[in-house]
Amino acid sequence: MATMKKVVLKNYVKGKPKETDMEVLTTSAIPLKVPEASNEAAMVVKNLYLSCDPYMRLLMTKHDEPPEFSYLSDFVPGEAIRSYGVCKVIDSTYPNFKTGDYVWGITGWEEYSLITNPEIFIKINHPELPLSYYTGILGMAGFTAYLGFHEVASPKKGEYVYVSAAAGAVGQLVGQFAKLMGCYVVGSAGSDEKVEMLKSKFGFDDAFNYKKEANLTLALKRFFPQGIDIYFENVGGEMLDAVLVNMRVRGRIAVCGMISQYNLDNPEPVYNTIVITPKRIRVEGFFVFDHFPSYGTFEEMAVSYIKENKITYVEDIVEGLENAPGALIGLYEGRNVGKQVVVVSRE
Amino acid sequence: MATMKKVVLKNYVKGKPKETDMEVLTTSAIPLKVPEASNEAAMVVKNLYLSCDPYMRLLMTKHDEPPEFSYLSDFVPGEAIRSYGVCKVIDSTYPNFKTGDYVWGITGWEEYSLITNPEIFIKINHPELPLSYYTGILGMAGFTAYLGFHEVASPKKGEYVYVSAAAGAVGQLVGQFAKLMGCYVVGSAGSDEKVEMLKSKFGFDDAFNYKKEANLTLALKRFFPQGIDIYFENVGGEMLDAVLVNMRVRGRIAVCGMISQYNLDNPEPVYNTIVITPKRIRVEGFFVFDHFPSYGTFEEMAVSYIKENKITYVEDIVEGLENAPGALIGLYEGRNVGKQVVVVSRE
Repeated sequence: MATMKKVVLKNYVKGKPKETDMEVLTTSAIPLKVPEASNEAAMVVKNLYLSCDPYMRLLMTKHDEPPEFSYLSDFVPGEAIRSYGVCKVIDSTYPNFKTGDYVWGITGWEEYSLITNPEIFIKINHPELPLSYYTGILGMAGFTAYLGFHEVASPKKGEYVYVSAAAGAVGQLVGQFAKLMGCYVVGSAGSDEKVEMLKSKFGFDDAFNYKKEANLTLALKRFFPQGIDIYFENVGGEMLDAVLVNMRVRGRIAVCGMISQYNLDNPEPVYNTIVITPKRIRVEGFFVFDHFPSYGTFEEMAVSYIKENKITYVEDIVEGLENAPGALIGLYEGRNVGKQVVVVSRE
Repeated sequence: MATMKKVVLKNYVKGKPKETDMEVLTTSAIPLKVPEASNEAAMVVKNLYLSCDPYMRLLMTKHDEPPEFSYLSDFVPGEAIRSYGVCKVIDSTYPNFKTGDYVWGITGWEEYSLITNPEIFIKINHPELPLSYYTGILGMAGFTAYLGFHEVASPKKGEYVYVSAAAGAVGQLVGQFAKLMGCYVVGSAGSDEKVEMLKSKFGFDDAFNYKKEANLTLALKRFFPQGIDIYFENVGGEMLDAVLVNMRVRGRIAVCGMISQYNLDNPEPVYNTIVITPKRIRVEGFFVFDHFPSYGTFEEMAVSYIKENKITYVEDIVEGLENAPGALIGLYEGRNVGKQVVVVSRE
């Protein structure tokens, strides 16, 4: 039995989320064993690292229709926020995981969680690497970058690649994958510090601060005078519009997310969809949830890249559940530099 | 030598095109033989049937950048309009075609044309069928319907298919292909007469007059309570927006064209691109120009369907070059019922 801290959503959010939309509570004592009455296999985990991801804003609003994110449903006011996390198994009646195993999957923003769907968790095969990497480069963010770039965008050597939110958890990897592939890659971010990091740390061929550009269409024309073959979309709205007019014939837009739109009651319009036919553009949304069977292949590839120093990964680490709401809100203000992680406990 | 009529563009068009943007002239006598001085293989053709297609509006505006339509460039004021057409070869120095052959390809809106790029023409293998079919079901429109539906949208039996501009040259075929595939298909059109034709003549499961719907999103929800798997996009703008919110997870939008947008100086906004990621939607533009190597396969399939009465095709036939400008303008007003064809000469 243990008391614990947890982060709950206070109320459904309208517009921009604030730290005060969440609340850190201490629970009464809860058992650290799977209830004996439970018919289904389950496990109790200790949460070590939690992932802050832009899509989480979408779960802070109540939707009338059943959600289209597999495994994910809207948060419930009064209950713990949920996200991907790295966990240590404390007790398990699920045959694939035993006490002491490290796993990652969707868990609660609390010190311990009873997991009733352990089948969506994945065992951590490389605990010799920083465990927090399984919220990022070896977790959803890395797998997202890999799928979106390699499977959805079908890159070819020498193609021109643009990545928005390029200093984030996913963007920094897309840029590095593109360079490993022999592409020309430009990234955008919201501060000069991030722009510098894109060029010096992640090897982007060029980068720019979108906040300093009066006209995104002209900015992209400057960085891509020959046009864009692949756009890795993390932003949406005005940026997507500017990209559309700069796309090359047979270009591909891998739509990972649209962080600029998540806090808006009314989404920004996109005017340039008319170019999709003459340019024969493919715009495709994707989700890692659909692709977990191929995660193992990705994990081994990414682990090799890390061990061979072919890829680097920047994390923005915040200590303690009490700082988790601020870390999550920071994503929407562009405060994070790299993958935003919350440490609940290092062991 | 012969004098002939031709239809020329008078000036580049802003906004909605009018009949008076074109002019029917009679030329001085021109030779009906390939000039002997010509180094490249060429042919002189007699134009029989001309195709009126929505994309032609895009060529009536001067574009600063090189056009992205292969084979097609902006029309030139004072010169003949160009479009797909069915032609009879009068003289040829191109080895693949000889005098008397029937061919189809991009020709001029005039009685006779000197064709300097005969390699983009295709021989008509089934002159026993109505020759006008090679402007429609056996020409670009039919091939477009086939590629967009079968190759781009990747349909599966039992899927829910929506077709806009469904009574047009392409839409009527998409609906019939979808029924042959075992899909549930609903079409929209702009008059009750067309709606009736969709159901009674082309076998659509249901159809509606979009002009009578105050709210397209709700209309689509009524016709597709379970959502749309495939949208064959001919319209754009507000319709695309309404479709996006009604798409099912892993839905596909084959973007054939956006006729509602071609006459607008400022395109209509699309607000709902944000659903592309959670629904994992693929939006893909396509052009027949990229696919001519597989035309032969299509032609044989379509000819079989026609001969076995599995597919029917409705044409809206106008007689005489002098009526061609009105026929083309009629497309943008929704006047045509079925494929709009202009007869220059029946033989």
